Amino acid sequence: MLLVLAKILGELFNKVSMPHVIGELLAGVILGPSLLGLINPSTELEVLATIGVIFFMLSAGFEIDLRKLMKTFKEGLIVALIGVLLPFMLGMSLGYRYSMNFVQSFALATCLSITAIGLSVRVFMDLGMLTSRIGLTVVNAAVDDDVIGLILMSIAFTLISEEKGFHDVMITSISSSAFLIAGFMLGVLLTSNAKLRGLIRSLFLGSIKSLPLRLTLIIAIAFLFGYLAKLAGLHEIIGVFIAGMVLNTLMGAEERAEREIIDFTFAFFALLFFAYMGVKTDLRTLQNITWFSLELIGLAFIGKFLGGLLGSIIAGLNLREAIVVGIAMNSRAAVELVIANAFYSLGIFSKEVLTALVIMASITSLTTPILLRISIGKIKS
Amino acid sequence: MLLVLAKILGELFNKVSMPHVIGELLAGVILGPSLLGLINPSTELEVLATIGVIFFMLSAGFEIDLRKLMKTFKEGLIVALIGVLLPFMLGMSLGYRYSMNFVQSFALATCLSITAIGLSVRVFMDLGMLTSRIGLTVVNAAVDDDVIGLILMSIAFTLISEEKGFHDVMITSISSSAFLIAGFMLGVLLTSNAKLRGLIRSLFLGSIKSLPLRLTLIIAIAFLFGYLAKLAGLHEIIGVFIAGMVLNTLMGAEERAEREIIDFTFAFFALLFFAYMGVKTDLRTLQNITWFSLELIGLAFIGKFLGGLLGSIIAGLNLREAIVVGIAMNSRAAVELVIANAFYSLGIFSKEVLTALVIMASITSLTTPILLRISIGKIKS
Repeated sequence: MLLVLAKILGELFNKVSMPHVIGELLAGVILGPSLLGLINPSTELEVLATIGVIFFMLSAGFEIDLRKLMKTFKEGLIVALIGVLLPFMLGMSLGYRYSMNFVQSFALATCLSITAIGLSVRVFMDLGMLTSRIGLTVVNAAVDDDVIGLILMSIAFTLISEEKGFHDVMITSISSSAFLIAGFMLGVLLTSNAKLRGLIRSLFLGSIKSLPLRLTLIIAIAFLFGYLAKLAGLHEIIGVFIAGMVLNTLMGAEERAEREIIDFTFAFFALLFFAYMGVKTDLRTLQNITWFSLELIGLAFIGKFLGGLLGSIIAGLNLREAIVVGIAMNSRAAVELVIANAFYSLGIFSKEVLTALVIMASITSLTTPILLRISIGKIKS
Repeated sequence: MLLVLAKILGELFNKVSMPHVIGELLAGVILGPSLLGLINPSTELEVLATIGVIFFMLSAGFEIDLRKLMKTFKEGLIVALIGVLLPFMLGMSLGYRYSMNFVQSFALATCLSITAIGLSVRVFMDLGMLTSRIGLTVVNAAVDDDVIGLILMSIAFTLISEEKGFHDVMITSISSSAFLIAGFMLGVLLTSNAKLRGLIRSLFLGSIKSLPLRLTLIIAIAFLFGYLAKLAGLHEIIGVFIAGMVLNTLMGAEERAEREIIDFTFAFFALLFFAYMGVKTDLRTLQNITWFSLELIGLAFIGKFLGGLLGSIIAGLNLREAIVVGIAMNSRAAVELVIANAFYSLGIFSKEVLTALVIMASITSLTTPILLRISIGKIKS
């Protein structure tokens, strides 16, 4: 049911030039607890969605040309830094106004600052704009954002636990940055050195003629990169995404194995992931809306939007582009909710704060694709 | 790790003309609790393996020509009937000799009688013999076996519970047979009526040009058939298998969507399923081997082998073919273990009986592909 409805709504939205992903999210909202209650979050769906987002990020990586991505590295970093700084400060001030202590405010501010990469990447893909300058800037910013968010999180946990210390924060920062730098360097090396590329390609493709064998190898490499990213402290999908880019450099877009993974991903895995994201977006939580959660949502929007906008302008994008980037950085879901739950179970957040963060994630997830589509439309016209 | 090792060992076994699946099972045994203990059974892997076997049975269904399958219907039914009868009687007698009561003996006999379709189908596929007369006879027999096993199980549960009665047994028998008959009739109708086939094909393929959309539709139809089979009381993979056959009749083997599903299945899903089957085959249980379990294993082998052999000869196959069929019907795993666990949790089976059944499943799973390969080799030479 979820697959069929997600696909149908996705195609319908596509017909009216909206991103597929809105239809897919909507399918989940309709069948999920928000409306019909036919499908509820479950371990089984969670596992499939996790595999789903891994294949999605691999497919997204396939579309990215590392050389082009590197060209927007500076822009992305500036957007990420300012795009974290602003919501973080707003989060701290919100915490203090509701008389939270320093640690609680810091944790709240951290949750406000982390962008979810998947949704915006998907919208850009649906609109065929992932490889545009704005698309690449957002990708860069989202990857950097993951590192900054990780460091903030690690600081927050250090503040809470007495065992961890400054030492751990350093290790996390170094390991995650090292993973990213190593991944990109591998990519750049392969891109710039045609001889090396040819050598690895002939080893890789020359010796393996069976298509399923090649597929397995690609999937295994993606999982390996994801695992290494997780070891380094990053979210595993960042590792898979880098694997996709590196593999794309090696194989080139005409590779059939790559094509089949993309087809299968958008027929099954990504569909499940985004539809399940809709299932998990329980709109019944809106009943519990409070002044605090309204303020939180407002600051979440303002912080990320202005942060992204300001960062983009400083980085040299024009105003219309900067608006798109600001909106694209606004979605928050996966990582933010995991951290929020961790803080809740450690007793840092009250149930009310957790609920407010869940509502904020729901609203940014549902509105980002729509706002992004509208703002991109303004650019194209 | 599991994916890579399974693929490598699978290819190595293929190089020496053995079925891939032996290498895949072995990868699971090596990485699993039996040897290295690096990978243990988990809910996550269980979910992926379940999706894996669904895609595997869909792919297997794609390879089957319904018209050809129908030609071995009689042979299959005879093999299934005698192939259930003999191990059932041996199971009853074993139960009585170990002074179990009627219900316990009946439950034990039921567990001995149910063939697992997946493994033998896979071996025939690996050897390119799924569409041979023996292959099709085994497929027919395995499907019928599932119905007979289901009826036996339903009788066993009726004997245990006071609420259920003869009424339920009837309903189960009728619903499962009705599902099978309806599924096959749909297939036969589509096969024999070229006009209807053309009409549905043009509706189906004509209107849907996007490959991912077609893929989603095929996957959704497969899941739907699986769901209906489960509603009818059968194992869901039987429904998916029939969906594969019906879809193959509709689309024909040149269809690209079909090709991509098969590629992806053997690169990922089937690999995970069979390797995980190896992980779950915990050879450490062999430490708990008793006289009872040895007798059980012996009777399991003798019952299924002789039953399949006798049935095949009565159905008109020659002795060498009959030996292959007898061996192919011997694998038992999925359904048998589920039922055994259900009986155990109802207090019908002691821990010792359950362990013996688990050991029996492990040994038949590991030996069937090897024995089957050897016996098929004898035919070909």
